[in-house]
Amino acid sequence: MGAGRSVLVLEARHRVGGRNFDRALAPGAVVELGGQWAGPGQDRVLGLARELGVATFPTYASGNNLYYRSGRLLTYSGDVPPAAPASLGDLETAILALNGMARSVTPDRPWTAAQAANWDQQTIGAWIGEHIPTAEARTLMELAVASVYGEQAAEISLLDLLSAISGAGGDINTLIGSAQSIRFLGGPQQLSIRLARKLGTAVRLGMPVTAIDRGSRVTVHTPSQSFSARHAILTLPKPLIGRIAYSPPLPPAHDQLLQRQPMGSVVKVNAVYPRPFWRDRGLSGAVTSDTGPIRITYDNSPPGGRPGVLVGFMEGNDSRAFYGASAAARRRAALACFARYFGRTAAHPSAYVDLAWAEEPYTRGAYGSFNPPGVLTALADAAVQPVGQLHFAGADFSPLWSGYMDGAIRSGERAAHEALAGLA
Amino acid sequence: MGAGRSVLVLEARHRVGGRNFDRALAPGAVVELGGQWAGPGQDRVLGLARELGVATFPTYASGNNLYYRSGRLLTYSGDVPPAAPASLGDLETAILALNGMARSVTPDRPWTAAQAANWDQQTIGAWIGEHIPTAEARTLMELAVASVYGEQAAEISLLDLLSAISGAGGDINTLIGSAQSIRFLGGPQQLSIRLARKLGTAVRLGMPVTAIDRGSRVTVHTPSQSFSARHAILTLPKPLIGRIAYSPPLPPAHDQLLQRQPMGSVVKVNAVYPRPFWRDRGLSGAVTSDTGPIRITYDNSPPGGRPGVLVGFMEGNDSRAFYGASAAARRRAALACFARYFGRTAAHPSAYVDLAWAEEPYTRGAYGSFNPPGVLTALADAAVQPVGQLHFAGADFSPLWSGYMDGAIRSGERAAHEALAGLA
Repeated sequence: MGAGRSVLVLEARHRVGGRNFDRALAPGAVVELGGQWAGPGQDRVLGLARELGVATFPTYASGNNLYYRSGRLLTYSGDVPPAAPASLGDLETAILALNGMARSVTPDRPWTAAQAANWDQQTIGAWIGEHIPTAEARTLMELAVASVYGEQAAEISLLDLLSAISGAGGDINTLIGSAQSIRFLGGPQQLSIRLARKLGTAVRLGMPVTAIDRGSRVTVHTPSQSFSARHAILTLPKPLIGRIAYSPPLPPAHDQLLQRQPMGSVVKVNAVYPRPFWRDRGLSGAVTSDTGPIRITYDNSPPGGRPGVLVGFMEGNDSRAFYGASAAARRRAALACFARYFGRTAAHPSAYVDLAWAEEPYTRGAYGSFNPPGVLTALADAAVQPVGQLHFAGADFSPLWSGYMDGAIRSGERAAHEALAGLA
Repeated sequence: MGAGRSVLVLEARHRVGGRNFDRALAPGAVVELGGQWAGPGQDRVLGLARELGVATFPTYASGNNLYYRSGRLLTYSGDVPPAAPASLGDLETAILALNGMARSVTPDRPWTAAQAANWDQQTIGAWIGEHIPTAEARTLMELAVASVYGEQAAEISLLDLLSAISGAGGDINTLIGSAQSIRFLGGPQQLSIRLARKLGTAVRLGMPVTAIDRGSRVTVHTPSQSFSARHAILTLPKPLIGRIAYSPPLPPAHDQLLQRQPMGSVVKVNAVYPRPFWRDRGLSGAVTSDTGPIRITYDNSPPGGRPGVLVGFMEGNDSRAFYGASAAARRRAALACFARYFGRTAAHPSAYVDLAWAEEPYTRGAYGSFNPPGVLTALADAAVQPVGQLHFAGADFSPLWSGYMDGAIRSGERAAHEALAGLA
């Protein structure tokens, strides 16, 4: 469009944004049920926000954080929870080791690292088990991994983590810290909504793509209509890209890769209170806990703190324990966690919204997809290539800031350049 | 049908058998491009063969085997290749360790083993790297794993292997040895063909299922027709089950599991010669090699040895090296391997047939699906459950003889019982 080409955007849902999804609390005040944060170095998403007139504000981080372990609740200030000194030493050693290994990993070709085969055949979980002696430090590192992937460390290749560290600037602390320091006033879904508004009628809602014919042109089928184009950019979560019926079928490398890059599993919970009552007690709203289902919380209030909002995450197996459970059971368990950390007041929010992303038919998991062991070294070079006139984009297709809105924008720019080059 | 119920079988291909697929060489003589062997203890497949009048014969195993390592070709008799004594000692120690661990794994619920979490967060590849000191023994064990799964040991959960060992009677040697000792005269696809013949017009070919509506009845859609039934048994490879469009969508546990159980990757090669010339030199046709793309071969001649047939396997990454290569390049590489092992005569077969299973649109890999790390402990209890009136069967759904024809029959019996119980 900007390049003078005609475009059409087919969106399966009756809204745009995908994993950018905000729920309105009051005019101008939203809670984010999906993508939420940005941080320093994420130039693309911050640039897009400026371009589209979406203001940013700092994540609330004043006051003390809470650390819950073995049934005890402790407060602390700064980034380092009051774990036992031996645990903190182990954790620091592990972080330095991971950052050190990540230095030899190029995020757009992690399989070329000298030690790639060795690192790719280990899970992050096994690495933690072998390299972190204290149980407390292991728990903290597993929690950090879950907060990046929404998945158990036992499922994820160590090389995937090293690549993520490298793609976020080289320090794992960025992934679990400063990448969450900036929020978007009115919610980040506005980025998607305002982009869609610019495209006007070129965006068609309620158009799930079920089949694609790959010929001299690309013909894209939805249950109600078919569309023909010279190029198509697919931006679904990876497992769902594999579920489209292609004719002719995708080449074996792409097909096998799409069999191997599952989505994590997260229930994102927001509890809304008239006021952020925890701030009165000098608390930031941030919790790090060894006890689920919610082990991580933050203050998620709009600027000014009216209303007060706590956000919490059930990640990996913690979220799976609620597959098939009622919404009421999920709410009860979530509020029990908030009350455990912030007292009885937290058990009685004025509003409560959560989303089990694995149940969303057009996403089927969160935060994003990941590489199990052996996949990056066996197959991932296929992933960076288009298939004829099919191009792939989305947060999980970016070597830089993979899994973030920033990565999604980068991968979209790359795919658009590929397609434009094909049209030239 | 046998229980007095009406049944309909929808087969995507224009043939029955799926991964049972034979190619005729001459009347009564076939080469198997898919399922091929059975062994002692596989009562179901041997019983079905008797019932359907398909005779069996022993896999040719007379004479010496070949061991190719570091550019040298050695002959040996018996099951143990002439590796260095230290390597053989390491291998034996590893086999005893694996068999020992498998004793605490119940194949229908491997996630309940006391050490399940620990074993499930390791890949087989990492376990081999840590527990087998000599390079030669590591190579041999990785080869054994590839011959079971058609996949790199670096991708597969150790707990999956222990479960496979347990489900095959408790000894890994069975999986890589005696489970291949029996063949079917005229080929095992006859089992599928004769079963289909019994069902007559109840079998509909060329009917790929693209969508399933789950209501009070099950409505199954193909591009040309829709069918309604009280129960449906799905027998596709696991990743392809996930690609059917379900309405309502599958529950999250099943969906996430189907995102996580990929197919291995195998090119199966048969080279046909007027006579099994290797037998004249006292060779069995069996090769174990450290050099790909074909590292494993067997004599695959019909009984009597007219013609002579060598079968070879490109497994895991060896097969991936030929994704996108021409059929001629694949043939050239395969025959170069046969010639390396059996001399120049092997380079000039009278016929050559191969199949790259990852390219087959209705299979997309081989030998079967497997569990990457962390999946069995996180999700696999979902897999043994039907979803309403949907039941699941196939070789990879059986705890006993998983991945074998025998396991496929067992899982089919289980699913049929489930469905019949639902009709009672």
